[in-house]
Amino acid sequence: MSSQTPDLKSIVGEIVGDMKKRGDKGKVATYIPELANVDPDMFALVVIDAKGDVAAGGDFETPFSIQSISKVFTLTLALGMVGDRLWRRVGREPSGNPFNSIVQLERERGVPRNPFINAGAIAVTDVIVSGHQPREAIGEILRFMRFLADDHTIAIDRAVADSEKRTGFRNVALANYMKSFGVIENPVDFTLGVYFHHCAISMSCLQLARAGRYLAHSGRNPATGLSVVSPERARRINALMLTCGHYDGSGEFAYRVGLPGKSGVGGGIFAIAPGKASIAVWAPGLDSAGNSHLGRIALETLARRTGWSIFGV
Amino acid sequence: MSSQTPDLKSIVGEIVGDMKKRGDKGKVATYIPELANVDPDMFALVVIDAKGDVAAGGDFETPFSIQSISKVFTLTLALGMVGDRLWRRVGREPSGNPFNSIVQLERERGVPRNPFINAGAIAVTDVIVSGHQPREAIGEILRFMRFLADDHTIAIDRAVADSEKRTGFRNVALANYMKSFGVIENPVDFTLGVYFHHCAISMSCLQLARAGRYLAHSGRNPATGLSVVSPERARRINALMLTCGHYDGSGEFAYRVGLPGKSGVGGGIFAIAPGKASIAVWAPGLDSAGNSHLGRIALETLARRTGWSIFGV
Amino acid sequence: MSSQTPDLKSIVGEIVGDMKKRGDKGKVATYIPELANVDPDMFALVVIDAKGDVAAGGDFETPFSIQSISKVFTLTLALGMVGDRLWRRVGREPSGNPFNSIVQLERERGVPRNPFINAGAIAVTDVIVSGHQPREAIGEILRFMRFLADDHTIAIDRAVADSEKRTGFRNVALANYMKSFGVIENPVDFTLGVYFHHCAISMSCLQLARAGRYLAHSGRNPATGLSVVSPERARRINALMLTCGHYDGSGEFAYRVGLPGKSGVGGGIFAIAPGKASIAVWAPGLDSAGNSHLGRIALETLARRTGWSIFGV
Amino acid sequence: MSSQTPDLKSIVGEIVGDMKKRGDKGKVATYIPELANVDPDMFALVVIDAKGDVAAGGDFETPFSIQSISKVFTLTLALGMVGDRLWRRVGREPSGNPFNSIVQLERERGVPRNPFINAGAIAVTDVIVSGHQPREAIGEILRFMRFLADDHTIAIDRAVADSEKRTGFRNVALANYMKSFGVIENPVDFTLGVYFHHCAISMSCLQLARAGRYLAHSGRNPATGLSVVSPERARRINALMLTCGHYDGSGEFAYRVGLPGKSGVGGGIFAIAPGKASIAVWAPGLDSAGNSHLGRIALETLARRTGWSIFGV
Repeated sequence: MSSQTPDLKSIVGEIVGDMKKRGDKGKVATYIPELANVDPDMFALVVIDAKGDVAAGGDFETPFSIQSISKVFTLTLALGMVGDRLWRRVGREPSGNPFNSIVQLERERGVPRNPFINAGAIAVTDVIVSGHQPREAIGEILRFMRFLADDHTIAIDRAVADSEKRTGFRNVALANYMKSFGVIENPVDFTLGVYFHHCAISMSCLQLARAGRYLAHSGRNPATGLSVVSPERARRINALMLTCGHYDGSGEFAYRVGLPGKSGVGGGIFAIAPGKASIAVWAPGLDSAGNSHLGRIALETLARRTGWSIFGV
Repeated sequence: MSSQTPDLKSIVGEIVGDMKKRGDKGKVATYIPELANVDPDMFALVVIDAKGDVAAGGDFETPFSIQSISKVFTLTLALGMVGDRLWRRVGREPSGNPFNSIVQLERERGVPRNPFINAGAIAVTDVIVSGHQPREAIGEILRFMRFLADDHTIAIDRAVADSEKRTGFRNVALANYMKSFGVIENPVDFTLGVYFHHCAISMSCLQLARAGRYLAHSGRNPATGLSVVSPERARRINALMLTCGHYDGSGEFAYRVGLPGKSGVGGGIFAIAPGKASIAVWAPGLDSAGNSHLGRIALETLARRTGWSIFGV
Repeated sequence: MSSQTPDLKSIVGEIVGDMKKRGDKGKVATYIPELANVDPDMFALVVIDAKGDVAAGGDFETPFSIQSISKVFTLTLALGMVGDRLWRRVGREPSGNPFNSIVQLERERGVPRNPFINAGAIAVTDVIVSGHQPREAIGEILRFMRFLADDHTIAIDRAVADSEKRTGFRNVALANYMKSFGVIENPVDFTLGVYFHHCAISMSCLQLARAGRYLAHSGRNPATGLSVVSPERARRINALMLTCGHYDGSGEFAYRVGLPGKSGVGGGIFAIAPGKASIAVWAPGLDSAGNSHLGRIALETLARRTGWSIFGV
Repeated sequence: MSSQTPDLKSIVGEIVGDMKKRGDKGKVATYIPELANVDPDMFALVVIDAKGDVAAGGDFETPFSIQSISKVFTLTLALGMVGDRLWRRVGREPSGNPFNSIVQLERERGVPRNPFINAGAIAVTDVIVSGHQPREAIGEILRFMRFLADDHTIAIDRAVADSEKRTGFRNVALANYMKSFGVIENPVDFTLGVYFHHCAISMSCLQLARAGRYLAHSGRNPATGLSVVSPERARRINALMLTCGHYDGSGEFAYRVGLPGKSGVGGGIFAIAPGKASIAVWAPGLDSAGNSHLGRIALETLARRTGWSIFGV
């Protein structure tokens, strides 16, 4: 790769240029009003390589709602708190169902398939709450995000959080359903309150790519030198992103892009090339599976041009 | 990796020694009598690196029934015949269900989730049959396997094929079910006959690791210099192995081993480390998800000691 | 029937005697503490024939929690309010699933299969709430029950209602799930509050048999002479009780008893013999499908000895 | 009823007249060519009352393919052979799914929900085959039908049977699926061969109404005086017809018509009014649930005008 590194900035520049020109932008999520208001023409791509060099283009300093991307970081946090005991409450298999499906929960007695579908992420959030007041747990998550990105300006968009609280009936259903099986231990309101808030974290692509560098580099953030998780745990979180990171579009993403990643309905995708780079892309329009349409195409192009696919050159 | 290569033989030797000693061997498949007769103490591991150096241990020249591992090669063959039109008949998403589930077929009008569950592999076989007599299609597949492994002694175990034909009621159900939706085009008997025969191919770990080298090396077999598929297609087959290669244990395999692979109920697992090695392991005892118990543990150890996980060092 | 009427009292007496002696009483529901406290030895049977003669035995004046039996009366009330428009929000088919299943809701976009599973009864309750305060809707339902039974002492057991409110996570899940599809129109808390209260109505077998006489007699209560519903609607409610009145034990109940009926987890069963009698039985112990164990046996015996099965003598 | 009997002929006459005039005839089944060839304008209605008086109109002597109506008679025959042991192989609950669904079989280990969905009827047929050659079992069923109808001209339409054999992939799937769980004991080909043949029995409405009189009259055919089944068993078969006789339209049929009945995709419906009449109707056009469209409307009218609904006057 060393010979290609000089080109990374131009590759990113070309991709951003191409994407800005495209007409097929997908559909901006409308299920909460705050997301629907986002400018559909926004596009950003940031790649931070192993040396810390940043290749960035488009609206890369504009914050957006990271939504389900936050699940990667709450999983990291919960694993740090309870270790492999977490897996008593959530599985590690792709679900083969949409992000908000409740069918599988009935068959498997309230235990969600993996930490990246909504039910699984709510169960992970419940581990973080673990007896604390919602306000404390939200503070804990926010501090963790700021620590990861080494940026104390990261904040939660309360309008988004409140909006989800008012309209997130399906998530209320999922949480109460798990509660009926004892998979949720805290009051449902507490856990959901925290969940809605961490999904409402606002970050720019630059902040996101910085925050996730530990997953590209054996669990250690090269910028700070601080170890976030063990190398083994970093690999395993990456494996979960690859198999489960894009709901029932996970297989397709692995097939086309070939990088571990996690998408959010705000149009962001976080991805990593192990040992090589931390990547964040943002394009608000979504495809039919609820993943960023141009974001996925940009990553597919990036992986092809850099040869970074984990499945071979 | 070059500094580690000298150690590969000793790593393989140690793993084989450890595995031969273990008491927890899983359960040999009994659903067809011929498989139940296999000696549960057999164990073999073969690793062929990029230079063609072979590290092998245990019963690595003993042929066994490759069963579902054949699905990787029939997928390769069918993609060569019809290209991406194949995806009209089979999906690319993990199924989240056991290998022989029929539930998903009803919901999705007879189109199987991916080419590695039984229904999907039968649909892929149907593409290979495509109007030919079963005998011709079987011959075509066998020739392809011999070409890949550069070994003309590879053969089909007719006792196994006949046994599956007599007892494979669930597969007959799956095929007729797809036929009712028009997803199977040839007579069901033809397609199933070919399917049962390619699952009954007998190969040793050495033959298997040789046959699969093209998937580790951008679609080209380094031994013969012949290109089997394009680099892009090789990556994509690898992605499918990672997300779907072990039925409803695929997430677990990715999480623990971190290498694209495909298992068979004969106890074999074929895996690759992109750019680095082609790997075959065989231990007849299975875990509860139907994958080789010691085979998976051996690969987990191998990946850890070589640092070959595609999800990071 | 006139020749049999003299015998009805002795038939009822014998059944009550037999049932009081039996050791197999099933298991009292424990999912809310208030239900678990009920004396498992209680048993009551009341039959009121077309002339108004009452044959009663056991603890027939002891009130118990009617639970899901209330769904018959809320269905009657809602049909009176909106007529056949009700069927836009709830179906009329047996569900083939347990009473609190959520799977079918996902497949059918939030529309419950029938008014007697929990989800369906919640949707019916939502129709009754229709913009009113919960307190008003609860009052409306209670007034309707008192009118039907011509008994102004009927009351709601607030301890039971509060207990369901605190522990009914699965019902909260069902209601929020339907809300996410727009099938519930009022605030979920309102509708569920009313639902929990009407399930917590306490009635004796005598009150229950009196309240339900209109369903045995073409929609008219012979005691008061007042018409409650049209003859056609009475028939149709009876048909729904027969096909859907006992969750996934409905087929078995029809097969064994042959009378339209509705059970509740409090151990009560209300049933009718069209043109002949209104029947209530109570035995707190439940069978595996959640229906009163001795209650069902008592009704089976009653139907056999009277020849009242709707499926022939 | 005696005062109404004089009117029965005119009621039947008026219904036939009305139905012949209607434009909404539903859609003739096309899944096998032989059924698609039927004249969509055919209509017949036959009612035989307790005294044996026949009210008939339309094409009541024209034979048609009784299809699934045969399941009522094979159930009767199998119960006569093995009694309640039959229920080890098939359940008694409505399925809540279409007639040819395979989903429920996977969840319940190959045991079909009831004897009137396809899978259940195949399991019942397997009991009748029980070690005999298909030819013998087919003969047995045909003799039983001729005995019931007291008519030795009843025959099987071999073109229909052959056509189902060639195209009934879904039934082949169901049978093999059950075989994989051991629910089918004979060779699948044997059992399916017999199943396809009894579905291909041709009868006129007059023959059908005669054959089914035992179910209206406590198990005894009033014409021959011969007892076919016990009164209890007759009641129970009637209960199964009511709860399960029309696939996922069973609830609707009970709600609208209120008579136990069984429909077939040939457009026939057999129904009974317990103690009063045996009824057969035929109109080839089907509704969306696969039941005769005008047949159901005719029965609804008949039940309303006679007051025969089992759910009250």
